[in-house]
Amino acid sequence: MKKPVIGFLQKVTDRLDGVSSHLCVGLDPHMPLIPSEFHSAHGEDQTIFNFNKMIVDATKDLAVAYKINISLYLNPLNRGLNALKQTNEYVREVAPEIPIFADFKISEMGWGNDALNSFLFDLLKFDCIMVTPWFGYDALKEFIVDRSKGVVVYVHDSNPSASDLQDLSLANGKKLYEAVAEMVNQKWNKNGNILVEAGATYPHQLRKVREIVGNDMPIVTAGIGPQGGKPEDLVGCFGKNGKRLIVSCSRSITFPDLKSESYADSVRKAAINMIAALQEVSYLKKGYS
Amino acid sequence: MKKPVIGFLQKVTDRLDGVSSHLCVGLDPHMPLIPSEFHSAHGEDQTIFNFNKMIVDATKDLAVAYKINISLYLNPLNRGLNALKQTNEYVREVAPEIPIFADFKISEMGWGNDALNSFLFDLLKFDCIMVTPWFGYDALKEFIVDRSKGVVVYVHDSNPSASDLQDLSLANGKKLYEAVAEMVNQKWNKNGNILVEAGATYPHQLRKVREIVGNDMPIVTAGIGPQGGKPEDLVGCFGKNGKRLIVSCSRSITFPDLKSESYADSVRKAAINMIAALQEVSYLKKGYS
Repeated sequence: MKKPVIGFLQKVTDRLDGVSSHLCVGLDPHMPLIPSEFHSAHGEDQTIFNFNKMIVDATKDLAVAYKINISLYLNPLNRGLNALKQTNEYVREVAPEIPIFADFKISEMGWGNDALNSFLFDLLKFDCIMVTPWFGYDALKEFIVDRSKGVVVYVHDSNPSASDLQDLSLANGKKLYEAVAEMVNQKWNKNGNILVEAGATYPHQLRKVREIVGNDMPIVTAGIGPQGGKPEDLVGCFGKNGKRLIVSCSRSITFPDLKSESYADSVRKAAINMIAALQEVSYLKKGYS
Repeated sequence: MKKPVIGFLQKVTDRLDGVSSHLCVGLDPHMPLIPSEFHSAHGEDQTIFNFNKMIVDATKDLAVAYKINISLYLNPLNRGLNALKQTNEYVREVAPEIPIFADFKISEMGWGNDALNSFLFDLLKFDCIMVTPWFGYDALKEFIVDRSKGVVVYVHDSNPSASDLQDLSLANGKKLYEAVAEMVNQKWNKNGNILVEAGATYPHQLRKVREIVGNDMPIVTAGIGPQGGKPEDLVGCFGKNGKRLIVSCSRSITFPDLKSESYADSVRKAAINMIAALQEVSYLKKGYS
């Protein structure tokens, strides 16, 4: 029997509604930080997979989503991508209800997008691709045709120089990132499978993005932890029922400070602590100021 | 004896000055279009390399640069990247003076850029990476440290929806793409190894970019041929001595209409025709209107 196809937005909101968590775990391997207990004699790809498997096992009942930065799997040649494929297959096996986001920060078009479509969706079975809007609608139109897949548009990022372009003032009085959030909301999101990203290190802009896209659309945010964002910065941005914000954390979870009996326990504790901190502020209605 | 390290800009301008050509050949494989004579029993990677080798052999005395769209080599898993590595090694062997551009249209940062640096520069020996400016200076700062490498910033692209963001009017009366060209020219290009890209399908914007960056900086353009741009659209944009414009053509050269005795001859003829058409307009000073 063929399973009914579930839409990307439905999959994301089902998970947000079903698990008491806002935590998206970023599976961003960084070889020098991976403890020796996960190192494999069979090469770096096996080491990366061992490590990712441990993270998935430690967080699969806690994570709203997994986010994978493709760039980090391109090196070394031909090995990182094996680890990536194995990781996605493992998540599909043990927690098929968790969406996996392909964080690629790319703006392609035409043949390039056809190739990414078959690489990321057909072959690696990602649920969505995260793109930048620099090339406009062409950068995402191929990815929204199939509603079981989706797109996250980087509207305002968390990095220090995100303001160089994204906070420029337009002739109509709006900021560039606001115009992009409006384009997504009013023009591009024809199939209802586009989400937006806004960094927690710019709480004013994140709140503005929430105003523009309304309370229903899940927003992906990042920058809590090492980048300087705090859970309090997210107050008022959680959307419908306090359950429409996806908070991506990578190294603070996968390379935690806290040392427990085992590495996996430390990961789990870091995840639980972050989830609790987010849960606490998700109910607050007041501004962050 | 160690060879002296040559700067990226020097390598590009040496090639532009040394060869009577503006043609950058885009090595963008598209499996369904690769003729059966290049197909290999050893798999798709060998087919792609066979095809690229033929193109390089047919154009290595004619091309100003080669441009490779990374996205097109990511699928199928673990094979396209082998073809890419072989292709770059082959160009290094037969025509080391030709710069190879990694067309990635990405905006990464931090760890992501570290990984791309070692993937594209250390491992694959590209001369530069082509990025989008969406994340601001952070998207390129890691790539300009080594002056033997460089960056091309997508300032105004050639695709239909490039205007969605790039032509937005700013509060200061400028267009967004103009502001980006100014940032590159006045702030980001600290080490003199950044170039800009502006699409030929928007001739007004291309000319404006040329005004902003001055006549010395090489500009990379695309969109001549199937995308609708014509050599005449480039008049006045060639810069110093008519030798500071790099015109990237992909399918019009690698999958030519013109059929000669051999496929390689057809490729060569298409390249020579395009070079002549570009040469003709490179001397013209008048506007394209």
